[in-house]
Amino acid sequence: MSLSLLERVERFNYDYAEALNQRRFAEWPDFFAADHCDYRVLSRENHDADLPAPLLGCYTPGMVKDRVEMLIKDTLTYRHMYLRHYITNVRADTAADGVIVSRANLLVMQSDLEGNSSIYMVGRYEDVLAEIAGELKLRKRHVIVDSFSIDNMLAVPL
Amino acid sequence: MSLSLLERVERFNYDYAEALNQRRFAEWPDFFAADHCDYRVLSRENHDADLPAPLLGCYTPGMVKDRVEMLIKDTLTYRHMYLRHYITNVRADTAADGVIVSRANLLVMQSDLEGNSSIYMVGRYEDVLAEIAGELKLRKRHVIVDSFSIDNMLAVPL
Amino acid sequence: MSLSLLERVERFNYDYAEALNQRRFAEWPDFFAADHCDYRVLSRENHDADLPAPLLGCYTPGMVKDRVEMLIKDTLTYRHMYLRHYITNVRADTAADGVIVSRANLLVMQSDLEGNSSIYMVGRYEDVLAEIAGELKLRKRHVIVDSFSIDNMLAVPL
Repeated sequence: MSLSLLERVERFNYDYAEALNQRRFAEWPDFFAADHCDYRVLSRENHDADLPAPLLGCYTPGMVKDRVEMLIKDTLTYRHMYLRHYITNVRADTAADGVIVSRANLLVMQSDLEGNSSIYMVGRYEDVLAEIAGELKLRKRHVIVDSFSIDNMLAVPL
Repeated sequence: MSLSLLERVERFNYDYAEALNQRRFAEWPDFFAADHCDYRVLSRENHDADLPAPLLGCYTPGMVKDRVEMLIKDTLTYRHMYLRHYITNVRADTAADGVIVSRANLLVMQSDLEGNSSIYMVGRYEDVLAEIAGELKLRKRHVIVDSFSIDNMLAVPL
Repeated sequence: MSLSLLERVERFNYDYAEALNQRRFAEWPDFFAADHCDYRVLSRENHDADLPAPLLGCYTPGMVKDRVEMLIKDTLTYRHMYLRHYITNVRADTAADGVIVSRANLLVMQSDLEGNSSIYMVGRYEDVLAEIAGELKLRKRHVIVDSFSIDNMLAVPL
C-alpha cells in the first residue's frame, strides 16, 4: 500500500497526536529531526503582528528532550486531564529544496475524570518536515494558538 | 475513480456518521458484518486500566438490530437533539489476515432547536473492518469515550 | 505530485477556510464560478422540513462580491473574533454531467482576544463544484447550520 504525500503527512500528525494523547511523552522527541529543531508555541495575536516572541520555544533537539523529561518521570505537579487532538484541514506541499511545508488546524479537547469535556486549545500548526531515512521528521513546528486554557496549556507539548 | 484504502475507510466512516446524524437508524446494522459483530462503548478510564466492562455492548448482528429497533419506531422517550459527528485522525492498515485495522478520533456536537450547541461526546473509534462482496463492513467497533453527556449518550448509537 | 479528486476538494475547502480565517475577504468571490453562484445559509430545521427560505442567500456572482464589500473596507460594526474552520467528513463524487458533488461537516470555533474560545457554528456544507480552467470553483455552497452564535454569525461568510 503506497500513501500519497498528503496521506503520509496526515499519518505523521495522527501518530504524533496519539503519542501525546496516550501520554507516551518519551516518543515526542522522535518526531523531530535529530539535527535540527524549531518548536514554538505562539499566540495568534503576536504571530499576526509579526511579533516573534513565543510563549514557549525549543530550538535544539536537546531542548525538546528536556521539555518532556519531567513529564516522562511524571514529577511535574499539574492537573491531569485527558486530552484529545483533532487535526483537520491538513495541507502539504513539497518545496524547491525538497522539504515538505505543511499546515493544519488543531482543536484539543480536555476531559476530566468526572466525564466533563471542554475546549483546551484552538489553533493551527505551521510545519516543515523532511524525509530522513524513509521517515518524516519535523524540522519546524510552530503552534499558533487562537486561545488556550492558560492554567495548564504549556505543561504538555501540543 | 479509484480510492486509496484510507479514502475508502474515511468514506465508510462519513457515510456511517451521516446515517446516524440524519436519524436513518434502520441503516445502522448494515454497516456491520452480517456474520460477526462486536460493538462496544467503553470509558477511556476503564479501557486504559484494562477493565473490559463496557458501558454498552452488542455482540451479535441480532443485538445490533435490536439496539436500533426502538429508535426506528421512535417510541423511546428521550430528548431529541441534533447530533453531528466530526471524525478526524483516521488511520487504516491492512493486517496479515487481510482485515483492516483502523482508528479515528470522534467529536460529537449536539444542538437543540433553540440553536445552542454543546459538546456531546469526546472519544475515539478502534475498529476492524472487512471487505465483504466489495463493501467495507465493521467486524468490530469499540467507541472509547473520554467523556459524554451521560443523560442521553447511550440513547443513540455512536 | 498528483492529487486524488478527494484530495483536491479537501484542499479547495482548506484554502477557502484559511482565506476566511485570515480575513482575506477579497479572495472569497474567487472561490465561486464566475458565471454561476448559489451561496445560501440555511437552518437545519428548515432544510429538513423542505422549507427553502435561507437565512441568507447570494444568487449571482455580483451578490457574492457585494456580500464581502463592507468586510473588505472593514466599515461594518461588529465584534471581531478570531474564527477557525474545522472541515471534516469530506466526501466528493463526480456526477454524470461532470460536476463534483461534495459534502462536508463544518465546526467553527471563535476566540476572543482574552484567549477564550467557544463554539461559533455547527453545521455542514452541501456543495457543487466545477473544474474551470484547471481550478475548482463553487457553483453551489449551501451551509446547513445546526446552530450558530446568532449575534454575529451572518457578519462574515461561512
